[in-house]
Parts: sequence; C-alpha cells; structure tokens
Amino acid sequence: MSELRKHYFLDNYCLIASGRSKRPSAPKACGDEEKVTSCVFCNGHENETPAATAVYKNGEILKDTDNQRVTGWDVRCIPNLYPALSPEAPDVQHPLFEVMKGYGFHEVIIENPLHESKLSNFSDDELFLLMKVYRDRVMHYQSQERIEYVSLFKNLGKNAGASLEHTHTQLIAVPLIPVTIKKEKKAIEELKSCPYCDIIKKEQGKERMVYENENFILIAPYYSRSPYEMWMLPKKHLHHISVFNEQMLMSLGDCIRKAVSLLEKTIPELAYNYMFFQTENDRSYHFNIRIAPVTSIAAGFEKNTDIYINTIPPETAVKHLLEKE
Amino acid sequence: MSELRKHYFLDNYCLIASGRSKRPSAPKACGDEEKVTSCVFCNGHENETPAATAVYKNGEILKDTDNQRVTGWDVRCIPNLYPALSPEAPDVQHPLFEVMKGYGFHEVIIENPLHESKLSNFSDDELFLLMKVYRDRVMHYQSQERIEYVSLFKNLGKNAGASLEHTHTQLIAVPLIPVTIKKEKKAIEELKSCPYCDIIKKEQGKERMVYENENFILIAPYYSRSPYEMWMLPKKHLHHISVFNEQMLMSLGDCIRKAVSLLEKTIPELAYNYMFFQTENDRSYHFNIRIAPVTSIAAGFEKNTDIYINTIPPETAVKHLLEKE
Repeated sequence: MSELRKHYFLDNYCLIASGRSKRPSAPKACGDEEKVTSCVFCNGHENETPAATAVYKNGEILKDTDNQRVTGWDVRCIPNLYPALSPEAPDVQHPLFEVMKGYGFHEVIIENPLHESKLSNFSDDELFLLMKVYRDRVMHYQSQERIEYVSLFKNLGKNAGASLEHTHTQLIAVPLIPVTIKKEKKAIEELKSCPYCDIIKKEQGKERMVYENENFILIAPYYSRSPYEMWMLPKKHLHHISVFNEQMLMSLGDCIRKAVSLLEKTIPELAYNYMFFQTENDRSYHFNIRIAPVTSIAAGFEKNTDIYINTIPPETAVKHLLEKE
Repeated sequence: MSELRKHYFLDNYCLIASGRSKRPSAPKACGDEEKVTSCVFCNGHENETPAATAVYKNGEILKDTDNQRVTGWDVRCIPNLYPALSPEAPDVQHPLFEVMKGYGFHEVIIENPLHESKLSNFSDDELFLLMKVYRDRVMHYQSQERIEYVSLFKNLGKNAGASLEHTHTQLIAVPLIPVTIKKEKKAIEELKSCPYCDIIKKEQGKERMVYENENFILIAPYYSRSPYEMWMLPKKHLHHISVFNEQMLMSLGDCIRKAVSLLEKTIPELAYNYMFFQTENDRSYHFNIRIAPVTSIAAGFEKNTDIYINTIPPETAVKHLLEKE
C-alpha cells in the first residue's frame, strides 16, 4: 500500500508506492520486437484486466461485473492493476513526520480497442467520444469524498514512462491540491487579471503560435522548459473540463490531435507526456494542457536549480513543426 | 548565445541555449563499445580542449595559456566547450516578456587524468584534493560580479545526462538565486530553528541512516522522491563550502565516496546526479548534497503535480544498500 509523505519542512509531497515496482515494462508485456500476441488492453482480452468501471459502447455507458465483461467496446476505463493510490488505503503513522494515507483512485482509459491505433489517426467522432470520456471520468472522481484534485495525463513511449504500448490515458485522483496548482493559484490571486488570457493576447497570430481552431489555441510557450513543449489554451476563460460544452470538446480533441500529429512528423521515435491543468472550484484559473515530448534529460543542474536548459528555442521549434505540414 | 527567460507569471526561469545542441553524446565521443582512443578529457589530450582556467599539479595551482597547456596534472578545470551561459553574453530583448541575458560561467572539473578512474576508487588524498578544488572553484565564481549562485553538480552515466564518460563534475554560475534555494530560504525564515539540524536529530542512528563519519551524516530521506535518493549533511550547522576547514573537506570526500560506492554495489548500470545545495551569504541555510540515482522516469503525473512516485521506500533502500557491504 502507498503513503503520501510530506517533505520535512516544505509543502511538497512524495508518493511512496512499493506495490508499483511489480508492474510490467513495455518491451516484455507489449513490445513490437516480439510481435504482440497478448496485450491486456486489446479487444478480446477483457478478462485479463480488473473489471471496468465504465465501458463506452454504441453511445451507452456500461459497467463490467466480476463475472461478466463488456466486449465490443469503444473506450474502456479500468482500475490500474498497480495503483499508485487506492480507495482502501489503510491508515499509516510516522510519529516524527507528516504523512497521509495513500487514499485515492488510479484509472486507465483505454482509448481504442485496436492495438495499432494512434491518437493522430482518430476520426472526429472517436476524438469527440474520448474527450467526453475525459470529462465524465474527471467529474466522476472529482465528486468522490476527500478527493481534491484529479490528475489526467497521457504517457506515450517508454522514455515518457509508459509501461504499455496500447494507446491509453491515465487518471490519478489525489486527496490534496498539488503544489504546482497551489503555486499558480497564489500567483493568479495576486494579479488583477487572468495571466493565461494575457498569454493568448500576446501569442495569438505571432511567431510562437502553432495552430488555432474555433475554441483553442496551440502555442510553443515563450517560457519553454524543453524542446517542442506546447500549451493548449481555450480562447474563452474556462477553468475546468466540466464546463466544456460539446463544441468545446470537439475543438479540444482537434487541438490535441493536431499537436500530436505535428510532433510525430517532426520527432523520430517520439515519446511524450501531456497533462491537464485545471481547478474544480476556482473560476479564476484558466484550463490548459501542456504537452512535452521527451528529447532531453533533466540532469544535475535542473535538479539543483529547477532552471531547465532548452537547446531549441520555441520560435525555432515552431518552424520545425510547421515545415512538415 | 543563451538567454534566461522568465515564466509568464511565475518566478521561474528557463535557459534557452541553442549552442548546446551541438555537444557530443557519450557513445560517439567516448563510448566503451568502440574502445576509447581519443577522449578529450584524458591526460595527453590537453590541446583538444579550451585553455584550462585552473590546473592542480603537485600541490600547485597553474593556468594554461592559449599556446601552452599544463601536462601531468592531477585535476584540470576547463570552460565547457558548449556553455549554457557565457561571460560575454550579448544583451537580449523580448518587448512583451521578461528576460535576462545568458551571462554566467560553465566549467568542467576533470577529476582525474585517467579515463578509467572512478570516484569510488579515489584515495583519501585524491578525494581531499577534489574537495579543495570544489571549494576553490565555487568561491572563485561566487566572487564574480553579478553572480548570485554557483551550481555544482555531477552527472554520471548517459541516463543521468552525462555526455562524456571520463569522470568529471560541472559548475554553472548563474546571475540569479534559483527558485529551489529561494523557496527553502523562505521556509527556513518562517521557522524558529534550522530544519536540517532537526532532520539530523531525527534521523541519526535510525532506520534511514546509511552512514556517518566524524563530520557528516548520510541518510535516505523520509521524503524520498526516487529510489535510493540520499542526502549528505554536515553535523555542524554550516551554510557553505567556503567555511569548511580541511577536516570537514576530508569528511565530505569520504561521505561522497561512501554514497557512490554503496550505489555501485546495489544498482546495475548505475547512473546518478549529485548536487550541492548551499547559500553564500545566508548563514541560516544548512549546506547539503543530494544524490539521486536515475532508476525511474518523471512522467505525466509528476509533471502535472510535482508529486513523485517512488516504488522503493527509503527504509527498504537502506537495507538494500547496506546488505552489500
């Protein structure tokens, strides 16, 4: 079982999760070297995973039971077999130090039943469904008792921390507001207007803009910690995916597909993470997604100073990304 | 040339350094696959690097000239050929955003003339000399105009960001106090006593202590972000390497060697970073070194929340480290 340990004197937490050391690594479980024969995320292998918490099929939302798995699904949400946090976490004590029990939820969203499917090839309908699933699952966990934040993220490629190859997104619901969000909220409180609205004003139509559609803008931010980092922002000031209507969800899906497609065309053996930043109750926050391809290593200098060395200026990154279009 | 770009609205900086994309990568320049024939850090290859800023030889400190390189050295300090920052940085402007020119220094400390040398095999004398070099070079750069912080760190192994194999440490002198140090200083200010002195009190002789000598203690911290992370702390409250006497330097070298040796015995294909945390003028800070082997990847969850998932509790890590003794 896991525990959330607080730093000796800073407002930071780490998650000690010894159970996760048993999880499979990509090449063994689902590698392309030895031709995939048994990926547990694939269509037809539903019995090899825990029972699904939500199965999207032909416009309906179903559930597995312990004895009966839904087959022929479009998107399938299952508990992570090696959860970082668990709803049944036992209490834990360290007399001299601060700790919270590892209470929470860890879910895998299998985006498509086919092993070879890729986000960049998703149809508009498939993307729209996936965005609806993102919205549903975030709202579901956000409403659970004692859950303060739902982290939604995708790891693609072994270098980005993915342990399975089949296209999937993860969701970890935690009983605290992470320091990343707290820090931004505090800075925003001290400002008079939304800094993200200001970013849109400054970057839209300029050299660091990569793409825009009706509702979203995609930029390589002025402050870029790593090569080809991109941010997606809704043009309207909206704080959370729960307030997105269908048009917004469609635009969001389109923007994610565009970002991923451009990266695929530009970076060989692409690995990336994308992360949703949002707040449930604080309307002063501006929803955003950051996508970071893994092309470099955070080494001693970064770990010492938190100053990231980026060898490709965002202005150059945009040129590279758009010349392949 | 490089530039320090400030985040749109947070007190964070990134370093845009396009010149560094040309640096060699380990396997090409200095790999063990194609038997090393020409490592530029090796004894006898002094002409293939920039002129040394300090050469330690038989108890003396010498300097290269453009025409004449010192040979037969013990430790050699040279400017990084692909510097992240430079003393001749030109001014840079981004009308809408905050930026500092990339002023600073980037030095490589070649710890030993022999290619196959390893810190874990250094004699007491070699370690003592290296610690003196660390102290000298940090003090030298800390005294330069407009330098606010000197980051001293070691990257070992390709997975830890090292681009050359020959044993070396790096130093980057920056014109600002990094956010990592600022944040700790602020937290310490708000406390009544030194939190690091308190850590020593709580961890010394207990299950997370790995080693201690006369002046230093080595622990696997309660708050461990990654497997086998260790912290080295002087038992006395001292803020900076510049105030270490010879006994302290000897103890420090011994503690570093112990940490590295234990990791080598425990982790196959070891890669690690160690970083010096210290403040020049603020005596309320407590000098410390953190050593972090690279055994896992910071993925989407970590990038979203800054909560690191660690699959090996520090108490277990200590058992693994000490059972190989």
